[in-house]
Amino acid sequence: MSTTISASIIGASGYSGAELMKILLRHKQVKIENLFANSSVGKRVTDLYPWFGGRVDSVYEQYSVDAACTSDIVFVALPSGEAMNMVPELLERGKRVIDLGGDFRFKDVSLYEKYYKHEHKAKNILHQAVFGLPEWNRQQIRSASLVANPGCYATSAILPLAPVLKEGIVQSHGISISSLSGVSGAGRSASVDLSFTEVNESVKAYKVGVHQHAPEIKIALEAISGTTVSLTFVPHLLPITRGIYTSIYAPLAKEVTPGEVLSAFRKHYGSEPFIRISETAIPEIRNVSFTNFLDIGFRIDVDNNQLIILSVIDNLIKGAAGQAVQNMNIMFGFNETEGLLS
Amino acid sequence: MSTTISASIIGASGYSGAELMKILLRHKQVKIENLFANSSVGKRVTDLYPWFGGRVDSVYEQYSVDAACTSDIVFVALPSGEAMNMVPELLERGKRVIDLGGDFRFKDVSLYEKYYKHEHKAKNILHQAVFGLPEWNRQQIRSASLVANPGCYATSAILPLAPVLKEGIVQSHGISISSLSGVSGAGRSASVDLSFTEVNESVKAYKVGVHQHAPEIKIALEAISGTTVSLTFVPHLLPITRGIYTSIYAPLAKEVTPGEVLSAFRKHYGSEPFIRISETAIPEIRNVSFTNFLDIGFRIDVDNNQLIILSVIDNLIKGAAGQAVQNMNIMFGFNETEGLLS
Amino acid sequence: MSTTISASIIGASGYSGAELMKILLRHKQVKIENLFANSSVGKRVTDLYPWFGGRVDSVYEQYSVDAACTSDIVFVALPSGEAMNMVPELLERGKRVIDLGGDFRFKDVSLYEKYYKHEHKAKNILHQAVFGLPEWNRQQIRSASLVANPGCYATSAILPLAPVLKEGIVQSHGISISSLSGVSGAGRSASVDLSFTEVNESVKAYKVGVHQHAPEIKIALEAISGTTVSLTFVPHLLPITRGIYTSIYAPLAKEVTPGEVLSAFRKHYGSEPFIRISETAIPEIRNVSFTNFLDIGFRIDVDNNQLIILSVIDNLIKGAAGQAVQNMNIMFGFNETEGLLS
Amino acid sequence: MSTTISASIIGASGYSGAELMKILLRHKQVKIENLFANSSVGKRVTDLYPWFGGRVDSVYEQYSVDAACTSDIVFVALPSGEAMNMVPELLERGKRVIDLGGDFRFKDVSLYEKYYKHEHKAKNILHQAVFGLPEWNRQQIRSASLVANPGCYATSAILPLAPVLKEGIVQSHGISISSLSGVSGAGRSASVDLSFTEVNESVKAYKVGVHQHAPEIKIALEAISGTTVSLTFVPHLLPITRGIYTSIYAPLAKEVTPGEVLSAFRKHYGSEPFIRISETAIPEIRNVSFTNFLDIGFRIDVDNNQLIILSVIDNLIKGAAGQAVQNMNIMFGFNETEGLLS
Repeated sequence: MSTTISASIIGASGYSGAELMKILLRHKQVKIENLFANSSVGKRVTDLYPWFGGRVDSVYEQYSVDAACTSDIVFVALPSGEAMNMVPELLERGKRVIDLGGDFRFKDVSLYEKYYKHEHKAKNILHQAVFGLPEWNRQQIRSASLVANPGCYATSAILPLAPVLKEGIVQSHGISISSLSGVSGAGRSASVDLSFTEVNESVKAYKVGVHQHAPEIKIALEAISGTTVSLTFVPHLLPITRGIYTSIYAPLAKEVTPGEVLSAFRKHYGSEPFIRISETAIPEIRNVSFTNFLDIGFRIDVDNNQLIILSVIDNLIKGAAGQAVQNMNIMFGFNETEGLLS
Repeated sequence: MSTTISASIIGASGYSGAELMKILLRHKQVKIENLFANSSVGKRVTDLYPWFGGRVDSVYEQYSVDAACTSDIVFVALPSGEAMNMVPELLERGKRVIDLGGDFRFKDVSLYEKYYKHEHKAKNILHQAVFGLPEWNRQQIRSASLVANPGCYATSAILPLAPVLKEGIVQSHGISISSLSGVSGAGRSASVDLSFTEVNESVKAYKVGVHQHAPEIKIALEAISGTTVSLTFVPHLLPITRGIYTSIYAPLAKEVTPGEVLSAFRKHYGSEPFIRISETAIPEIRNVSFTNFLDIGFRIDVDNNQLIILSVIDNLIKGAAGQAVQNMNIMFGFNETEGLLS
Repeated sequence: MSTTISASIIGASGYSGAELMKILLRHKQVKIENLFANSSVGKRVTDLYPWFGGRVDSVYEQYSVDAACTSDIVFVALPSGEAMNMVPELLERGKRVIDLGGDFRFKDVSLYEKYYKHEHKAKNILHQAVFGLPEWNRQQIRSASLVANPGCYATSAILPLAPVLKEGIVQSHGISISSLSGVSGAGRSASVDLSFTEVNESVKAYKVGVHQHAPEIKIALEAISGTTVSLTFVPHLLPITRGIYTSIYAPLAKEVTPGEVLSAFRKHYGSEPFIRISETAIPEIRNVSFTNFLDIGFRIDVDNNQLIILSVIDNLIKGAAGQAVQNMNIMFGFNETEGLLS
Repeated sequence: MSTTISASIIGASGYSGAELMKILLRHKQVKIENLFANSSVGKRVTDLYPWFGGRVDSVYEQYSVDAACTSDIVFVALPSGEAMNMVPELLERGKRVIDLGGDFRFKDVSLYEKYYKHEHKAKNILHQAVFGLPEWNRQQIRSASLVANPGCYATSAILPLAPVLKEGIVQSHGISISSLSGVSGAGRSASVDLSFTEVNESVKAYKVGVHQHAPEIKIALEAISGTTVSLTFVPHLLPITRGIYTSIYAPLAKEVTPGEVLSAFRKHYGSEPFIRISETAIPEIRNVSFTNFLDIGFRIDVDNNQLIILSVIDNLIKGAAGQAVQNMNIMFGFNETEGLLS
């Protein structure tokens, strides 16, 4: 297919924005149009990311809806709470939008306001948003105007849990999810807590039981499995730059063999281009670094009647920019792996 | 008190052995007598650990029981399966021994052989071994001839779980334990899997459901709580040198307030010199690095009816050499913190 | 251009071999034919490098010259001392070869034997070897049968020094080169010295004054500048996976302005696709990570009459596999950047 | 000796201040009196450094000269430019002061203002300041009222160079110094540049040729050797928390043997408690981590007529707090190693 579209990025100066640029530069059917930033307006991309030297000569621009509307697709990679100020107008003007932040992931405004701790200002378009998990919502994504790209932790937990919940292998209550993330997940920001010296040679849990991805995981799993789900989610900060390791402990609903668990995964993901499942191998973050893959491994703990599932992603790719491009590929009828396999 | 004892270390060339040396050098009532090694016999300590330059001038010696018996206490810091060849004779000759390995942690030989995958050759002294967890076994340690120093992961999991199990706050089944360890836990060895390039910027779970510390945790908790316990234990390897982060997910047995959980911890550990508990703070590995402390934090997840407990230790100190010296202090009537607070 | 060639890799199981695979998979005009290994024969590529899962299904094969000769180009990525056993026969049979090791970088056998510490067994083909530094030897590379791909440190030092030496800006004696390398430069091997625990949170110089890349740098610079060169080269091992930082201290031969130094670099590298020069910016390793770029920065130290030049490369790309593919592109008339810009 | 003194720290909330606390807690003859901070006033020490939990219960206080004057010694661990506002009054009131910052290291105000880029406000006490390098200035330190503790890089460069310059082994011109520092050297601060994600897996030089420690090194070496010295100094930022690696390239003044170089070092440092010299071993940062030692190694590069000297320190100990305590021990007639060998 030789169609070419143009794309703009709002919030192009952050880590997800930069990662989107890298992927789109490789994409044969996309031309990057505008890069919008905020405090970095007027700077060259290479001032913030010299890595792009010799490849990108662009300057970050002040956002304007008119400039954004010259593109076929607009990616929004802003901190939560900011996308909702821009997206309504973009939709009104007929643009298709993929939001990498959290503003459109919940239909329930009160839940959003509880976890994100600010008012939602674009409630009336929430119903239009499609949760951008290609493996489960491919059909709706195809025709969506607004895709809410899933959170990084959420992606790493929903995808491994969904098949075994849907197939009745594990119970929908008493699930524990222990996730470990690299520091890039916290974005590009000045903070003592994220300084090298404070993070290096250490680990800490944070937002224990109150992280905004917990309800995102719960709601997505409920939608997929059709049952009420309750789970405990604990994120931890690790001294690595990229990657998420998610270890899931789910009570078994029945006796199963490893082969049956594998079958459940294969049934749903057997033809998925970006999910790799193994009955024997244990996932490692480095196996998915700089890729759009999610790897799944598992073990059955008969003594304690639990299924242990382990999953890994690159938080900036399958957990953000890569999944966004995967969604874009679906929306525009491109090959779903275009730009995502090198 | 001005008594002084002499100590020897068998397996002094490994990481735990070296850490023992560091602590004993600071200890006002211990004189290091012999350092026994194997492949490093004849080398200076400073050949392997130049860090000791200017402080230690010793040479690693070939083990002999006669040489070992000139000491008041013998520490054994060997890979599992080796201590059992030496300890019986040491006990016969009246020496007191602290084994940092796994050979004497189980009373049940079949369990040992299942998890350690070799025959036990000193079954007849297993009954003499005291599990060296000062917080629960202080009395028996005092008069023990043979102390089986707990495993690093085991220490990090038993101590935070024991009070809430014993007090009936959490159920004794369906517990999940997600542990993260620095690489020094794997010892000083040549292996592609432990090379910098393979470990750095990654995470992997390993021995999922089959790690030898899982039954150690279960047995210790059963002994303390008086009930059967079942749990899932998953260790993960992290790109840090030292430290263990343990995240525990335990089903609540009843409704509790944070204050009640705190009280349960305080009841048992309120006067412990090396356990720090917080109702609000979340543990971080760096807070206990190079110390003998274990820090505990917790949260109640009402929605999923679970208690989340988080604990951290330095795997080489409270998880090995520090706890061994704490045990020695108890055995010889020294101040329990001597050598362990600088 | 639509020509397609086939390539085989001898020593495909090492880090350089794996990196070559990654690049060749992206290359539009190359088909990977055979992957030869040694101790890994019979294993899948994904057993050693699960990263390739879903993209590569190959198995490492035992080397045979017949199998190798079915390819148009043979890459040799073996430890030094092994390539010389295979390359003569490949050349005889008309194959074009790129050796990523050190066996064919020196014309002077005695120098080779002094630094590599074993006998050279293919002396009679040394004269055929072209030193594969595209920026200076592009013409000879084009028609070469055997390309000796430069060493990683050597690349990072020769390229920044050559223009200022050739233009008479710095003296050819009294040059000091301080290089820092990530651990992947040492290859994929089991060794206590390269274990995470020994490397992490430390730095050490090694092979001080006796590293085999020192004469490689000297000879290349003498060939380019036409004068005798003497220099001190000290490599250091850093706790990072990839990347080389090279800091050069060269006595000035005359008074110069920054503009004149910049002009010297631009004169030689102004149209080079993989060299980026800045008068103001200071190179950082992360700017070139996973790329084939070499970045150069510099400062004039008037008080001490020295030119300070700083350069960075990714040791596995511009320092090994990327430069090898750049050489291949030249040899086969492909676009020089093909496969190397994503 | 059983004298006990009291000490206060101004700037106790930074990394050097915290390190000072750790050392002073171990010191048998010092009682910590007041901990003065700025933005952290009212917080507990354990709020910033939970590591001290169970050992320190203090609260950071607002600075007042009266409170400071209740101590026998005042350590100032503030960013450069702030100490000069406090030290004059402390001296007037008869206090002895050790400043860990740069305000009193130069006698030449214009040099200070050139490198530190702000006006000096306490010029009239500069003559009282003794440069706190125990190995060369022990006599003056003993009776000093004001000790200017040397910079971390400066310590790592002056000490290895001084003996070979003084003994005429190397020339005093054309010296190059390549230093690598862990991130703690930059202090505890919120900055994108020091965030984990920007520092990890990278290296960068900075302040190339304009770092304030360059003139500090030059002046100290001139004072020691009695000749004019010119040198190039380039600091680099490394992804480690602590430690400095300094590689020095100095033109030989005459033919020497390794034994003669060793003798020069031994002549000056043979009885120094914190300098370790080796003719064969190459220094590594981890050998000095958490210690007050400086390790020196060297090689003679006959071909390029240079002496290569390699040195390592822990930037927070011998490069800051440890050296400060060493100075205090000298000033108060304590054992010079007290508090510094555990």
